[in-house]
Amino acid sequence: MRIAIVAPGSRLDPAIADRTLKLALAFYPALELSFHPQCFRSSGHFAGTDEERKHCGWKPANDTAIDAVWFARGGYGAGRVALLALHRLNETAAKKTYLGYSDAGALLAGLYRCGFRDVAHGPMPADLNREGGEEAIKRSLAYLMSRDPATLEPTVSPETPTAAFNITILSHLIGTPFQPDLGGHILMLEEVSEYMYRIDRALLHITSNPLIRTVAGIRLGRCSAIPANAPDFGQTEEDIARHWCEISGIPYLGRADIGHDVANRIVPFGRFRPNTVA
Amino acid sequence: MRIAIVAPGSRLDPAIADRTLKLALAFYPALELSFHPQCFRSSGHFAGTDEERKHCGWKPANDTAIDAVWFARGGYGAGRVALLALHRLNETAAKKTYLGYSDAGALLAGLYRCGFRDVAHGPMPADLNREGGEEAIKRSLAYLMSRDPATLEPTVSPETPTAAFNITILSHLIGTPFQPDLGGHILMLEEVSEYMYRIDRALLHITSNPLIRTVAGIRLGRCSAIPANAPDFGQTEEDIARHWCEISGIPYLGRADIGHDVANRIVPFGRFRPNTVA
Repeated sequence: MRIAIVAPGSRLDPAIADRTLKLALAFYPALELSFHPQCFRSSGHFAGTDEERKHCGWKPANDTAIDAVWFARGGYGAGRVALLALHRLNETAAKKTYLGYSDAGALLAGLYRCGFRDVAHGPMPADLNREGGEEAIKRSLAYLMSRDPATLEPTVSPETPTAAFNITILSHLIGTPFQPDLGGHILMLEEVSEYMYRIDRALLHITSNPLIRTVAGIRLGRCSAIPANAPDFGQTEEDIARHWCEISGIPYLGRADIGHDVANRIVPFGRFRPNTVA
Repeated sequence: MRIAIVAPGSRLDPAIADRTLKLALAFYPALELSFHPQCFRSSGHFAGTDEERKHCGWKPANDTAIDAVWFARGGYGAGRVALLALHRLNETAAKKTYLGYSDAGALLAGLYRCGFRDVAHGPMPADLNREGGEEAIKRSLAYLMSRDPATLEPTVSPETPTAAFNITILSHLIGTPFQPDLGGHILMLEEVSEYMYRIDRALLHITSNPLIRTVAGIRLGRCSAIPANAPDFGQTEEDIARHWCEISGIPYLGRADIGHDVANRIVPFGRFRPNTVA
């Protein structure tokens, strides 16, 4: 098993890469985990220029020797790369696994829309920055290595298609060529560090889109580190999700075990397929 | 001339209403300016509940005795009201003038999409909170009273259709039933209090939308009070606008004289029609 790690958005701290490699080696001695040097480049806000991120980041995707592409971290930048690089991927790229979340969701969405069928929301190396982050990394490795069902968000099943997004990231994909068709999917949504009024505004946006209204239902993940609203917003994030589901006619199905935290579980895009790669 | 003022988003300070009335009376003794009591209501984040804002806010629109509806301030909430109230407007509502900007753009967009042809971006009573805000209010009053060409953004003309939006507000309208068809329009965009990476992300979003790509060109207004990006974004707001215009094939036409400030000029949606109401 060979996993390549790329950083479509912000730069990764090399110390995090070292810790990820050591953790992976301890649990899976035969695993070959390689951080592309692009992860550590820097160009303003990003891990290298758009050109560097586009070329370096996507060589592993088209490389027959690589089994999976793991996104290093969030931040911002995956959407810029998606615009420039998705049309360069070949049949080899379509056969491998892609894993990440947060900003990386902009790429996962584009890959899924392009027909890639082994795309999943889950923890990334940068989650090692969180207290107890090792558990999150072990979860992603266990998913990548064996599709261990214990890594999955508890409501995920082989019967029902699912997808998971950060609310702000999905809002910025609405009405673009990268918005995936989630008809019949259970859509799980999470957020971090956004004001309650912005969560409300983004959920109004998302649920107003006709294509989104074809989902089978919405589950709300954790919304963490919400700054204080002035005045108090007067509604919780679940009140808000229920409200927009009711207005838009989308079934609200309860909470999802995902979020910007170490408990963040794996959500495959589409139907979960056990042991696809292992 | 009778102008009704409503607050589709956040609550207005009554002291601002008093100052607006005094200023209007000093310049236009015959003008009847009425702040709807809803402006001063409060429900969490908003100037009253959605129901209060929907009913109270839209009675003036359907009232034959009212010539224009002026939005009191921004904040957040116009998009929620648009979703609930646009289908209740009648032929009377379609004949009057609507003026505002920022969050109110979510309603201006919906009105314009519904075929209302006297909709404009321009200063609101809450601009009196700014130093020198009287100039902004006098500009809006002069536009409402006589369509004074001196109030217009300098590139506005009767020949070319225009529209103006706050970048974040327009981003949240993309792919919804409230996104107006701006084909052939010069689209002016401004922003306030957003990180540079968010300006970049929102312009990527907006310019990725196929319908937006039918505009005649984009002009960039002022982007003010931008918080410090960490690391430095490495591009100015104009670099960013030029970049996405180049990627999307939309002509970049230079700067626009609009923004969250007292110099903010009037931009009619569609073609400027001199002396429509006066």
